[in-house]
Amino acid sequence: MPMPQMPPAHPFDDDKLREECGIFGVVGVQDASNFVALGLHALQHRGQEAGGIVTHDPVEGFQSARRFGYVRDNFTSQDVMSTLPGPIGIGHVRYSTAGSKGQTAIRDVQPFFGEFAMGGAAIAHNGNITNANALRKELIERGSIFQSSSDSECIIHLMARSLQRNIPERMEDALRRVEGAFSVVAMTRTKLIGVRDPLGVRPLVLGKVGDGYALSSETCALDIIGAEFLREIEPGEMVVITEKGVESHFPFRRQPSKFCIFEHVYFSRPDSILGGRSVYETREAIGRELAKENPVEADLVCPVPDSGTPAAIGYSLQSGIPYAMGIIRNQYMGRTFIEPTEQIRNMGVRLKLNVNRALIQGKRVILVDDSVVRGTTSRKIKEMILDAGASEVHFRIASPPTAWPCFYGVDTPERDKLLAATMTEDEMAKHLAVDSLKFISLDGLYRAVGQDQGRNSACPQYCDACFSGEYPVVPTDMVERGFEMKPAAE
Amino acid sequence: MPMPQMPPAHPFDDDKLREECGIFGVVGVQDASNFVALGLHALQHRGQEAGGIVTHDPVEGFQSARRFGYVRDNFTSQDVMSTLPGPIGIGHVRYSTAGSKGQTAIRDVQPFFGEFAMGGAAIAHNGNITNANALRKELIERGSIFQSSSDSECIIHLMARSLQRNIPERMEDALRRVEGAFSVVAMTRTKLIGVRDPLGVRPLVLGKVGDGYALSSETCALDIIGAEFLREIEPGEMVVITEKGVESHFPFRRQPSKFCIFEHVYFSRPDSILGGRSVYETREAIGRELAKENPVEADLVCPVPDSGTPAAIGYSLQSGIPYAMGIIRNQYMGRTFIEPTEQIRNMGVRLKLNVNRALIQGKRVILVDDSVVRGTTSRKIKEMILDAGASEVHFRIASPPTAWPCFYGVDTPERDKLLAATMTEDEMAKHLAVDSLKFISLDGLYRAVGQDQGRNSACPQYCDACFSGEYPVVPTDMVERGFEMKPAAE
Amino acid sequence: MPMPQMPPAHPFDDDKLREECGIFGVVGVQDASNFVALGLHALQHRGQEAGGIVTHDPVEGFQSARRFGYVRDNFTSQDVMSTLPGPIGIGHVRYSTAGSKGQTAIRDVQPFFGEFAMGGAAIAHNGNITNANALRKELIERGSIFQSSSDSECIIHLMARSLQRNIPERMEDALRRVEGAFSVVAMTRTKLIGVRDPLGVRPLVLGKVGDGYALSSETCALDIIGAEFLREIEPGEMVVITEKGVESHFPFRRQPSKFCIFEHVYFSRPDSILGGRSVYETREAIGRELAKENPVEADLVCPVPDSGTPAAIGYSLQSGIPYAMGIIRNQYMGRTFIEPTEQIRNMGVRLKLNVNRALIQGKRVILVDDSVVRGTTSRKIKEMILDAGASEVHFRIASPPTAWPCFYGVDTPERDKLLAATMTEDEMAKHLAVDSLKFISLDGLYRAVGQDQGRNSACPQYCDACFSGEYPVVPTDMVERGFEMKPAAE
Amino acid sequence: MPMPQMPPAHPFDDDKLREECGIFGVVGVQDASNFVALGLHALQHRGQEAGGIVTHDPVEGFQSARRFGYVRDNFTSQDVMSTLPGPIGIGHVRYSTAGSKGQTAIRDVQPFFGEFAMGGAAIAHNGNITNANALRKELIERGSIFQSSSDSECIIHLMARSLQRNIPERMEDALRRVEGAFSVVAMTRTKLIGVRDPLGVRPLVLGKVGDGYALSSETCALDIIGAEFLREIEPGEMVVITEKGVESHFPFRRQPSKFCIFEHVYFSRPDSILGGRSVYETREAIGRELAKENPVEADLVCPVPDSGTPAAIGYSLQSGIPYAMGIIRNQYMGRTFIEPTEQIRNMGVRLKLNVNRALIQGKRVILVDDSVVRGTTSRKIKEMILDAGASEVHFRIASPPTAWPCFYGVDTPERDKLLAATMTEDEMAKHLAVDSLKFISLDGLYRAVGQDQGRNSACPQYCDACFSGEYPVVPTDMVERGFEMKPAAE
Repeated sequence: MPMPQMPPAHPFDDDKLREECGIFGVVGVQDASNFVALGLHALQHRGQEAGGIVTHDPVEGFQSARRFGYVRDNFTSQDVMSTLPGPIGIGHVRYSTAGSKGQTAIRDVQPFFGEFAMGGAAIAHNGNITNANALRKELIERGSIFQSSSDSECIIHLMARSLQRNIPERMEDALRRVEGAFSVVAMTRTKLIGVRDPLGVRPLVLGKVGDGYALSSETCALDIIGAEFLREIEPGEMVVITEKGVESHFPFRRQPSKFCIFEHVYFSRPDSILGGRSVYETREAIGRELAKENPVEADLVCPVPDSGTPAAIGYSLQSGIPYAMGIIRNQYMGRTFIEPTEQIRNMGVRLKLNVNRALIQGKRVILVDDSVVRGTTSRKIKEMILDAGASEVHFRIASPPTAWPCFYGVDTPERDKLLAATMTEDEMAKHLAVDSLKFISLDGLYRAVGQDQGRNSACPQYCDACFSGEYPVVPTDMVERGFEMKPAAE
Repeated sequence: MPMPQMPPAHPFDDDKLREECGIFGVVGVQDASNFVALGLHALQHRGQEAGGIVTHDPVEGFQSARRFGYVRDNFTSQDVMSTLPGPIGIGHVRYSTAGSKGQTAIRDVQPFFGEFAMGGAAIAHNGNITNANALRKELIERGSIFQSSSDSECIIHLMARSLQRNIPERMEDALRRVEGAFSVVAMTRTKLIGVRDPLGVRPLVLGKVGDGYALSSETCALDIIGAEFLREIEPGEMVVITEKGVESHFPFRRQPSKFCIFEHVYFSRPDSILGGRSVYETREAIGRELAKENPVEADLVCPVPDSGTPAAIGYSLQSGIPYAMGIIRNQYMGRTFIEPTEQIRNMGVRLKLNVNRALIQGKRVILVDDSVVRGTTSRKIKEMILDAGASEVHFRIASPPTAWPCFYGVDTPERDKLLAATMTEDEMAKHLAVDSLKFISLDGLYRAVGQDQGRNSACPQYCDACFSGEYPVVPTDMVERGFEMKPAAE
Repeated sequence: MPMPQMPPAHPFDDDKLREECGIFGVVGVQDASNFVALGLHALQHRGQEAGGIVTHDPVEGFQSARRFGYVRDNFTSQDVMSTLPGPIGIGHVRYSTAGSKGQTAIRDVQPFFGEFAMGGAAIAHNGNITNANALRKELIERGSIFQSSSDSECIIHLMARSLQRNIPERMEDALRRVEGAFSVVAMTRTKLIGVRDPLGVRPLVLGKVGDGYALSSETCALDIIGAEFLREIEPGEMVVITEKGVESHFPFRRQPSKFCIFEHVYFSRPDSILGGRSVYETREAIGRELAKENPVEADLVCPVPDSGTPAAIGYSLQSGIPYAMGIIRNQYMGRTFIEPTEQIRNMGVRLKLNVNRALIQGKRVILVDDSVVRGTTSRKIKEMILDAGASEVHFRIASPPTAWPCFYGVDTPERDKLLAATMTEDEMAKHLAVDSLKFISLDGLYRAVGQDQGRNSACPQYCDACFSGEYPVVPTDMVERGFEMKPAAE
Repeated sequence: MPMPQMPPAHPFDDDKLREECGIFGVVGVQDASNFVALGLHALQHRGQEAGGIVTHDPVEGFQSARRFGYVRDNFTSQDVMSTLPGPIGIGHVRYSTAGSKGQTAIRDVQPFFGEFAMGGAAIAHNGNITNANALRKELIERGSIFQSSSDSECIIHLMARSLQRNIPERMEDALRRVEGAFSVVAMTRTKLIGVRDPLGVRPLVLGKVGDGYALSSETCALDIIGAEFLREIEPGEMVVITEKGVESHFPFRRQPSKFCIFEHVYFSRPDSILGGRSVYETREAIGRELAKENPVEADLVCPVPDSGTPAAIGYSLQSGIPYAMGIIRNQYMGRTFIEPTEQIRNMGVRLKLNVNRALIQGKRVILVDDSVVRGTTSRKIKEMILDAGASEVHFRIASPPTAWPCFYGVDTPERDKLLAATMTEDEMAKHLAVDSLKFISLDGLYRAVGQDQGRNSACPQYCDACFSGEYPVVPTDMVERGFEMKPAAE
């Protein structure tokens, strides 16, 4: 029963993989909702479609607000924020991945809330449950009524049916039934709970703010509220936080960790810290590695704004070719050009980007982008650059060819829409009609993110399924729907 | 977790009992949602706070839209209606009675929907479940997650847990666990279902529209869609309607019927048919009976607009005293004067009503109203009439003193707020400072609604608990919260 | 340059003449804007499309707010009202008559404001300037820039070019150039000014509220603010009101008065006082006169709601035939059914009205309506009554046949759309297919409004051009556009 | 009479000078309004508060829409754009400078329109009329009625009173009375007109699009519609463009040109072309010059985003110190954080910017910004950098100290709010508590923009009043209000 809410049109973003969620929670502060709103604002790049906040206050009980649109538009007015009192709260921003196809109902917007015999709990989930269909079917047969089409709702129904006597234990029960990738932030009346799946596919970090604590998908959201970054939650760890402190549990069977390598490439904000280093520096390092692997003579290194910028700087530093902003982004574009007239819609990329004609003219240009997904944008950008009079265009891509869909909480096109699934590097260069097109190698990427020995092909240090097709967790629901995995022998 | 939605302010209506719901359903027509919207529009007097529609279409599946505000404002645009395709649909308009105190969340707006193993079902409920608290507690302990604070949600959870193999039988199972007053309209992918509780407290009627069928709280909603009124659903009857026809079941133990007598007095629209006669005629008959029981010499009979009009006409016809519109209603008032400034708020009744000064001056006026609840409005109207220069004011009330709250789906003030619960008729006359105040007797009311022998005190023909304090179903939840019923001996 | 604002659709009201404006002003009170808002709310029946308020405060200067829609929706929030401070203010509600055809820009919404060398002034105008085209052309040639398409804007430009030294004298200068019908309320920083044209076609009344004064189109707006009705402004009178008191001037050549007789028939609210009597009583008297002139045997007298009600009561009282509400109005209709789906649109009148089937069946019914304009609604109502099983339908109309358009501030269809312009009474009866159709005579109407000798055909006591075709002021602009007046000899 | 419209809060932008307007016009294309909307979108950086479009169509005549907010939010829906038909149109985006203090009414939003005896005309104005007060007083005394508080409205009233027979000549007449800086785009039913004041203070360029022509404040708006950049309109030139071609006139006395040098520094978009070179390259050149004049040992060159970026790249290229993004902008901030809660408001700069902590730690950082106005933001950014652990902070500013307000169409703080008006460079460095603070010299800036010999102090090649205090046109109105100009001897 989807509501007639149109997701904002992003003519440009269909050519990127999209992280689908950001999660945030805080306990032990005054007016937790303000902290959650700020945290979600800092995580907005992880989900622009909708957001929600739940808080608890001893007098008012649990309160929630869930809205379509940006945090800054929905969670900044006194009208809304005053309805969310109390010292504890969690929040969620989302893009749709699982759940209703195309359109999202407000019912699908997290956090989800459940009233149990021992009190209420709310949860916010980043990731994707790969056996959600089977779980849902089983729960419905036993009398559960689902209110959303979200895979995440399974967790709260599993918790409702658990025989455990307190909420953290019910959550352990529930999550042991769940397969796939998940980072979860949850809350009861007094406890803030954080969990990462045993592989640690999606990120989750812990911070200290005043006398209280915060959990966040990324450290940039700790910065915005003035919190100190303490540490990453470990794969398979559950933390239960009260105003008194942080308890740590490891309810799952231990496994080798498989953090999503694409967080380094594109999803995380450049000012966030991952693995002890700023994401910006990692991307600059990727650019250097890319320059080492794929040098070319040229006059200028230009980023495809904004996500190609750090790698372009790295490429320039390594190669000695001057860095320049050959493409200018219209800062008023944001991602919200809604309802363009047909004529404007056809202008496509020009609304967002303009080429610095006078700068580019007659130059050999290296364009650095973070990834190529469908290739539609790359093609348009190349045309803009050539129209502006560039003499040569060389594409350099700061990630390996994206040839496989992600089933762990990232919105990917179906496999046959991925340019790299159907073409070799040379075919792609021909298809895009550029003078050259080169991707960083998978080993090069591993080196740039800090694995000096490169990728351990026996047991890769990261989840790199989108590049390698090697899925660390079998995507059960998708396989049932007919998805063909790569033969193991390959 | 109520949302920060303010119900419209009704400065005037706090002095009326308020029917809390209207329900409507249709099957076997093209674009059922348009019929449901029209039906709900005709039933808007039964609930102005919010409304919802669910439809089913073979291609699109179940679709729903639920909104605060009037049907005419929410369910008339092509944008909304085009999202509700299909040949079958049900709808609901509501005032809050049970459910969250004061504020309502959109989650509390019906119809409610549940996905069962054998398919989905939606239900809309008019009435009140008097054992909802106990049922809710039991269901939560067994792992059900409630999404609303509405008593009606119990029905769908009981259905989810039933062991029956089809939806009508699951509904029978569920409703046998439920106590109180209920008329229900429900739908599956292909079946429209209607039920009235064994006492038949709340109304429900059946109509034929083209090759299809409609269920409605009142016949006026059949008129608006051009449907033919077939018959009332009987107390304790369940009808299961497909495009092929109407099946009738009687799943409950038979009991003497107890239709709400206040539907005749105020709730139903004057152009609806109840018991084979137009409600208008019944009210005119009540006015005649009132004139017989309580005559007085005067110059004019004036209605308190608009609900006192038919009884005033009856009083005038019986007494021979000319009928006149001494009080004029501002038609632009509607019931939606939102956010008045303090100054306007204090003007109270004047925004809604104005006295016909030139007409009233020096006259002895009989004011006919349908009921007296708190007495606050009666007092203001009396003052307006005297300010305008009336020489005498005689109140005549077309119902007996309202001394007891209703627990069967009507929004009543607590008992100590009811003027008649704490004062005799004479004390009320003194309190209101009118020249005389008279109510129709309970026997007189029974005669006027067609019981020529008056009320059968051994087994009253109607539910008249609001007048008599004799509750046909024990209001379990309220008794647990401390409500004291009238001693049986009284 | 009309803005894309759609006026609300009134499927029903295209069959009434529409008064196009209500005006109100107050001086010498705290927060004048609240009084103006209340006054305009009481005058909402005179114009539903848009409204505006201007106030003046010694600190903030002149402030204004102009909005499309109802007063209750636009001028009740603290947000808006707090921007309109000060002890003096005027306001306007409007339907479009002159001005842009069909659509209205917010620029056309009054009051209009002008900054002159000696200070600012705002004016609100009810009526129509019949030589506006010529004036506008002349003013543009001399360098005035018009901001609206409204005829009323001429007045403010004429004032700007006057050589007089103060604003009231400039207004006299301006209004002496103007032909047609006008009641004007205007304000300077300290003065409230009211004017009626020499014929007094449109109404304007004076009231006292606390230590201050109010001007209003009708007395009902004095009642709502608790003001005392002092007197009507006389035809050709200008009052200049300060906090100290009321000065009266007569700047125009005296002429016999020609008040609009249709104000008695339909435009004014029944609780307003006109000519020392409530409009309700006048309409009841019209109904009595109608019964005397056009008796018929029948079972019931039913009003066409709501405007036919007082005349129907009068008809019933005179004829002895019982009065009954055979047609019920859906009170949630208001006049705002916006964007109906095609299906709902086609339902037409049913959305607004329903017949009391059980009451009407088998009866001979007299339907009393205030007027017949195009006849489209009369026809639909007749069909509803017959569908409901009435055995006879007799129409009785409380005004003479409307055969001529009004050019003095009333929105009338073009002449060939007026049923009475092309058919005799008998032809209309046949066209509507009713058992009989009778109008009150013009003499009868004059008697009912208090002219015991009937109409003075040498010099009629009222403007009755819509019935008689005798226009007291030549409609210059319309004649230039080709309107053919009735030959004088006729 | 300002309306209660709040301009968006820009906590950050109060520390920049703000260009107040962008103008655009097009003739000879299908659906001109779509081109104008795109052009204004590309010029949005020149004015974010409001925008307006006027078009003319042979059938519909002149049409207009004026709205608060961004072009992308107001001029993209079919609803609005379909009301603006025709092959010719002009538009305007604005920040308030002259006009009502603080708040703007929709009446103040351009283009302004006037109906003259020979037809209508609309104009859009970028700049500021320095004798507007005197002109306005004179026009009001002669009977003109102003509808806005904008200085630009004088032009249309002067045109209305001109004795010339056609609109271009009336515009010449009007503009000869006007002092100050102005670029104007205007239109009649068939002609697109562009004018620059004799000094050419504000920019205006001409482009060819299909068979038609476009006028724009900057070339970036030509790029977005696919127009070819033909040339800059010359100082003192008036072009009159029809579908047939471009006529050029020079109605004013010739004077040495004084283009605003700050357009190079900050106002214009980096991808626009000014003086035959991209603004980006000019800014990079400013950065190089800045590095030559003010070298310092450091580890990183970081821009203050986004306006400091090109100069920082230039500084890095010149100095050999690596360029890095030490400060990350939150791309979801835009400039629209409306109604922040008090707590969020106090977070100030953090909502917009975050420091790359892991990158900055222990480093000596050169921060490059385009200008220092009040210095409030510089201070906050310095604190963020130090909090993040930088060992040294050196500010380098790509313009000379801004010590004088602009009166030619730029929104500047009053003189005593300008940091450089009250402090020397050393005092500023101490005030900001940075390790060093250096500005480019005025001569250095002239060299960087292409004047190899630097500034001609006898007759400067640009208007640089904001740096030098030498105003090329006496700001009459401001001098009357008490502004003290720099003594000529200085």
